Amino acid sequence: MSDTAIDRRRARGDASRRVILESATDLASVEGLDGLTIGRLAESSGMSKSSIATLFGGKEGLQLAAVQAAADIFREAVVDPARELPRGIARLAKLLRSALDYSRDRVFTGGCFFAATAADMDSKPGPVRDAVRGWLRDWYGYLEAQVRFAAEAGQIRADAATVRRLAFELIALDNEANARSLLTGEDAPYEIAAAAMRERLLQVGAKAEDLQSLA
Amino acid sequence: MSDTAIDRRRARGDASRRVILESATDLASVEGLDGLTIGRLAESSGMSKSSIATLFGGKEGLQLAAVQAAADIFREAVVDPARELPRGIARLAKLLRSALDYSRDRVFTGGCFFAATAADMDSKPGPVRDAVRGWLRDWYGYLEAQVRFAAEAGQIRADAATVRRLAFELIALDNEANARSLLTGEDAPYEIAAAAMRERLLQVGAKAEDLQSLA
Repeated sequence: MSDTAIDRRRARGDASRRVILESATDLASVEGLDGLTIGRLAESSGMSKSSIATLFGGKEGLQLAAVQAAADIFREAVVDPARELPRGIARLAKLLRSALDYSRDRVFTGGCFFAATAADMDSKPGPVRDAVRGWLRDWYGYLEAQVRFAAEAGQIRADAATVRRLAFELIALDNEANARSLLTGEDAPYEIAAAAMRERLLQVGAKAEDLQSLA
Repeated sequence: MSDTAIDRRRARGDASRRVILESATDLASVEGLDGLTIGRLAESSGMSKSSIATLFGGKEGLQLAAVQAAADIFREAVVDPARELPRGIARLAKLLRSALDYSRDRVFTGGCFFAATAADMDSKPGPVRDAVRGWLRDWYGYLEAQVRFAAEAGQIRADAATVRRLAFELIALDNEANARSLLTGEDAPYEIAAAAMRERLLQVGAKAEDLQSLA
């Protein structure tokens, strides 16, 4: 084949991957990563089983690609918008708001992709569980780093133990809002969580003008 | 059959149910309620498939009986010990500590039975999902009622909106401790959550002597 023909074939492969992964992440958010079989995905994406198998090389390859695709979508929805605000407390508040919105807006049908798939994976050691858990550790670490930066910059009063606990509390509120909204079908949990996050940050000395994202 | 023979047969049936349900709740805490098949349960409990089918009448009957059995175990581990303390703030603190201990001690191998099975059920409408969700609503409602009672008795300062938010925050901390410990295999999340619960209750005016369970 000519270089152009190879490029075209690659472009078609990339487009097919995107279509399949969009279905796959959404399906996994509802059914769990274990429910992500090539047969079900063929139904929901409209692609043939053999193309899916060719592109991803089996169920595990598909699951790993879905986790990576979900991480990309989360980054675009939550992490990138917060980068527009200065590091520290303002960026932290924006990250928390974007994380609540990402769940509330059902970017994935089953709410937060990682919350939906993590519990499922507890009993299934292997590379897929490692990928989900690795992502959770990274996200929690990133959020805690923002809290630490805000403390170091004097934007909040918090020693090392308080930084760790504060990050834990903020993540707990975010995860609870997602779980409770899925339980009740209501949006109220997001507002309760945002109000609790805001109050908690005010208590450690954050200025109201830095918390506008959570207002 | 004589009355005595019938009584003996009933007693044997009850004992078999107990053995099977002990296996079933533990298995479901790891594999989810969907993983609770009669075949798998026969393997883990050592009972025959046909006895299990006779006693529970199929998979859904088995799932519903497992939810009920898990609710009984939770009540014995968490709710009953708290009843020994006076209503209000002291009982609330004891409830929170017992809930953390119940997860930390792995009363069920997969941590909190209801946390493990709730996410799984989101996409599966029906009586089993209703049973899990109904239990979660009852537990959250019971915890919120303790917060409300503490406020009404003047043990904490909290208007109606604060009662609701405070209950949400305390539940969030409990659920996060369970999830994070399952993620990392560590006990530290329980101590972080207990410290955060304690501080939150002190902030709304609880007396330290009423919070000894969380010390």
